[in-house]
Amino acid sequence: MTPPSDNPTAEPFRRLCVIGVGLIGGSLARAARAAALCGEIVGCGRDPAHLERARALGVIDAGETDPARAVAGADLVVLAAPVGAAGPLLTRLAPTLAQGAIVSDVGSVKGAVIEAARAALGARFPAFVPAHPIAGAEHSGVEASRADLFRGRCTVLTPCAETDTTALRRMRALWEAAGARVVNMDAARHDAVFAAVSHLPHLLAYALVDWMAARADADELFAFAGAGFRDFTRIASSDPVMWRDICAANTPALLGELEDFRGALERLISALRAGDAAALERIFRDAKTARDRLLHEAAAGADS
Amino acid sequence: MTPPSDNPTAEPFRRLCVIGVGLIGGSLARAARAAALCGEIVGCGRDPAHLERARALGVIDAGETDPARAVAGADLVVLAAPVGAAGPLLTRLAPTLAQGAIVSDVGSVKGAVIEAARAALGARFPAFVPAHPIAGAEHSGVEASRADLFRGRCTVLTPCAETDTTALRRMRALWEAAGARVVNMDAARHDAVFAAVSHLPHLLAYALVDWMAARADADELFAFAGAGFRDFTRIASSDPVMWRDICAANTPALLGELEDFRGALERLISALRAGDAAALERIFRDAKTARDRLLHEAAAGADS
Repeated sequence: MTPPSDNPTAEPFRRLCVIGVGLIGGSLARAARAAALCGEIVGCGRDPAHLERARALGVIDAGETDPARAVAGADLVVLAAPVGAAGPLLTRLAPTLAQGAIVSDVGSVKGAVIEAARAALGARFPAFVPAHPIAGAEHSGVEASRADLFRGRCTVLTPCAETDTTALRRMRALWEAAGARVVNMDAARHDAVFAAVSHLPHLLAYALVDWMAARADADELFAFAGAGFRDFTRIASSDPVMWRDICAANTPALLGELEDFRGALERLISALRAGDAAALERIFRDAKTARDRLLHEAAAGADS
Repeated sequence: MTPPSDNPTAEPFRRLCVIGVGLIGGSLARAARAAALCGEIVGCGRDPAHLERARALGVIDAGETDPARAVAGADLVVLAAPVGAAGPLLTRLAPTLAQGAIVSDVGSVKGAVIEAARAALGARFPAFVPAHPIAGAEHSGVEASRADLFRGRCTVLTPCAETDTTALRRMRALWEAAGARVVNMDAARHDAVFAAVSHLPHLLAYALVDWMAARADADELFAFAGAGFRDFTRIASSDPVMWRDICAANTPALLGELEDFRGALERLISALRAGDAAALERIFRDAKTARDRLLHEAAAGADS
């Protein structure tokens, strides 16, 4: 017996098909089952051994390597593969999609995925609900998946003018049942915001570690890297293919943020070169104040 | 009764004077007492109320606002104030320093502090043992101090040609009794290594948060900042005055690393602009491999 959903407006799905059974896809499957919001769960991926592991863990009921077969009979299909795979996957599964099925995703970039969905789904495009749960971790894989991964976190939905309101409502109910705070947002604005707060920091962390690892004195440098360095670079342990795809799918916004941040970095370098200790202290103090306030608000948000 | 030191070669100090009773100074005082390596502990700082708090917490036995009076009768004086204060403090306390007293510090930059000590201490300079415990935290203040802060961490000693070998041996024994792994290193090399693995990441984190906080859309950006952003910017909550002084004291090395890193960032931006997904993936993969190996070695080190 699964407990009843704590969201009275949520209607369960008969069959959920998750394409890409990793941390996010696996956690969504677990959360949907824990909330009694789906009957059967079909997992789709390229590696049969991986699907069997997901089945053994109880995350999915059945595995299927062919997306076209995997989606047959599903009333909800969620793409949880790297965003670069969205177009090819949607093109492949569109012909066998059940009548009335909702299609959604969990990608960190929304504009490019929406365009891929529009091209692949054609008249079925209104059934596509673009979504982005803010719940990354440097650990990936179905083994790290948890039913409560999204609890207290934010999930952003970026519906288009065409998006079916019933599909949108049902996806909101699913994410709320998973414990997420759900926010609607314009897709282009989403991509601009996450270019700044997520994609840019990932690029900086990756660039710093790669730069250091390529040096002749890399071993000595890493030997003296403390806890600050480890936290700063935690996101550089994220999945390389996932981040390659995010960069490719959000290049213009990311380049804009990089250019702008480079200007801020130049100002800091100028202050350093000029020996302007007061300017450095002001920058450091403003940053500390802003971050401490952010932490304070994040802690308050977790309580509410 | 305090337990006997677990380091058989350590000789206790009669009176330890800690100048700057914050996280590091307070933790060293606690560790020295826990290891029965000092009799009385005198704390020195500008704020009498702060010294009284440190006394009430049992971190120090007595407080003194005047460095010249604080060091009287101490056979070990440890500077634990921001590195920019080292020169003025040493100049002030040198005349009242007891015969045979050892002077040491905990600064994150060694070259500038050594030059300040050489100028201030004159013929007493051999008694100065430059030290840097790698145990920062974004929490500062005596309230966060702990006797085990240095356990399993590294403390770098950067003795000069003139440094008295007995003073060096006694400081090594003190840090080992506090649980630290002690490494000797050339001061200039120390400053180059920490410019790369510590000072540069701090500057990047500070620059990123300050840049974001100054934007018109700062509130929205911070509202969507996830756990990755919070870890990446943890070090931007560090003490602004401490980091202002570190930047001022290590400017040439830090500028060199900034220039070099900027080159790496340019290569990444070029790959992004060219749409070279393979180059991006290679950078991300190399970074992940290097960081995962670093974590693996750090975990192995903690066990040993």
